[in-house]
Amino acid sequence: MKKLVAAFLILLFTLPVFADDSISLGTTKSLESKIMAENRPYMVYLPPSYGTSENTYPVIYLLDGDIHRFKGFVGVLESLSTETLGNQVQEAIVIAIPNTNRSRDLTPSSLIEWKFKGRVLETFDQTGNAKQFAKFLENELIPTVDTTYRTSKKRVLVGESFGGLFAANTLIESPSVFTDYLIIDPTSLWDNDYLNRAVNAGNKDIKFNSRVYFAFANNSHLGDIGLTNYEWGSTFASSVIDNNDAISEQQFFENETHGTVAFLAWYNGLKTLMSTTEH
Amino acid sequence: MKKLVAAFLILLFTLPVFADDSISLGTTKSLESKIMAENRPYMVYLPPSYGTSENTYPVIYLLDGDIHRFKGFVGVLESLSTETLGNQVQEAIVIAIPNTNRSRDLTPSSLIEWKFKGRVLETFDQTGNAKQFAKFLENELIPTVDTTYRTSKKRVLVGESFGGLFAANTLIESPSVFTDYLIIDPTSLWDNDYLNRAVNAGNKDIKFNSRVYFAFANNSHLGDIGLTNYEWGSTFASSVIDNNDAISEQQFFENETHGTVAFLAWYNGLKTLMSTTEH
Repeated sequence: MKKLVAAFLILLFTLPVFADDSISLGTTKSLESKIMAENRPYMVYLPPSYGTSENTYPVIYLLDGDIHRFKGFVGVLESLSTETLGNQVQEAIVIAIPNTNRSRDLTPSSLIEWKFKGRVLETFDQTGNAKQFAKFLENELIPTVDTTYRTSKKRVLVGESFGGLFAANTLIESPSVFTDYLIIDPTSLWDNDYLNRAVNAGNKDIKFNSRVYFAFANNSHLGDIGLTNYEWGSTFASSVIDNNDAISEQQFFENETHGTVAFLAWYNGLKTLMSTTEH
Repeated sequence: MKKLVAAFLILLFTLPVFADDSISLGTTKSLESKIMAENRPYMVYLPPSYGTSENTYPVIYLLDGDIHRFKGFVGVLESLSTETLGNQVQEAIVIAIPNTNRSRDLTPSSLIEWKFKGRVLETFDQTGNAKQFAKFLENELIPTVDTTYRTSKKRVLVGESFGGLFAANTLIESPSVFTDYLIIDPTSLWDNDYLNRAVNAGNKDIKFNSRVYFAFANNSHLGDIGLTNYEWGSTFASSVIDNNDAISEQQFFENETHGTVAFLAWYNGLKTLMSTTEH
């Protein structure tokens, strides 16, 4: 009987996949957030070796985490962390967080009218809830993920545009929630240079201790708006890099715009923050 | 009753995804190949709009199509063909073809010992079956895909290393099977400059009519082998580009090696061959 079971098990594990089998990339989950007073969905990707190892893994939190961005980001990570691209990057868990109310959750101050040099760029129903959303991450989502999966201490926040603004603000307000930040073309134009004002308003001797990779796009086709967003963003990045115990960097992508820079930012950012050769 | 059904349907389509739902990236299928005399698995990715449109879609055939390369390539395509990266690239179906016997199927000539300047680079049990494998694609896999899915006439072959050698050889031997070729750091060192010898041995007035994007890595750390592989590959690429009715190009990646170049090659190659602004 034991032999039969053994033979059956061998058969089970060596059977090639001949049927029409769905290829799974991850799982959609959700949690009832008391802090946000709403149900918050999220998507989970587990790395290739997760099921066959006892290892713990870094966790990457991906903002603006809709299904397309989830597939794209996971594609970059899976390639870089497997033989496909020479195992350059550590395997990691990805938690993608779709928006329920983007301008409400990702902006750090309340503005009905977002202005730049007297001109209204955009109007909003709700803004300024970043502190609350950061609490949701810190006190609800991260503890849930840490108790559900085998997580290591490395925790990366990835944000772009408004998501980059949120990530930068989290770096100022509660830097220890994440060990690493991948900040892509942040909306530095928000609330008249909010980020630099926040850095300068508080403790002049502000010290960072998080690994940060900044990616900036070439938005000069947008004129003053594009140039100023980069100028303010780069000034902020320099403050972070110069006053940081962890090695951080900023990179400018001449040939990419705000809407296209994410991909090379993921590629270069993951190689910088998650390299297999130094950790 | 009708109202009840309508209400139920609305509920059904507006229910947020609260359960632990698997996120599917595609399907594994297979076919019994008479030409190859074996069962051949393949993976299928359908683009986001496939289920809600009547459109036909280009089909991209991905060689060396294991699960990691499938996830990585699809991630690039999904990002580039959705709002994530500004809809720069056409949506497309992907068919990834895993190897069953790599050296047998992807090489165009029979070599037991693969030599370069008298030195044996590698020995093989089986090589030289490229013509047969190309027939399998042309007469079995492609017809199956074309009858199963809504495919357009645009058909792209993506190959890297030995896969690039196979793609380049297909371009010479049966160019019309694919409309476009994405050839990544091909093994031009194969069989003493096989590709250039094949181009020069046949009709001197050889004319291509396929869109080709070549990506080459910097393998100078490998010395003579790396330099010669690039030299021969670049010579072949120039022949293709110069004698081609379709606009083609080659790109050299200074900062990438043979094992890492695939990603930027996919990114740039898809933008070149599948652009939404010209087709």
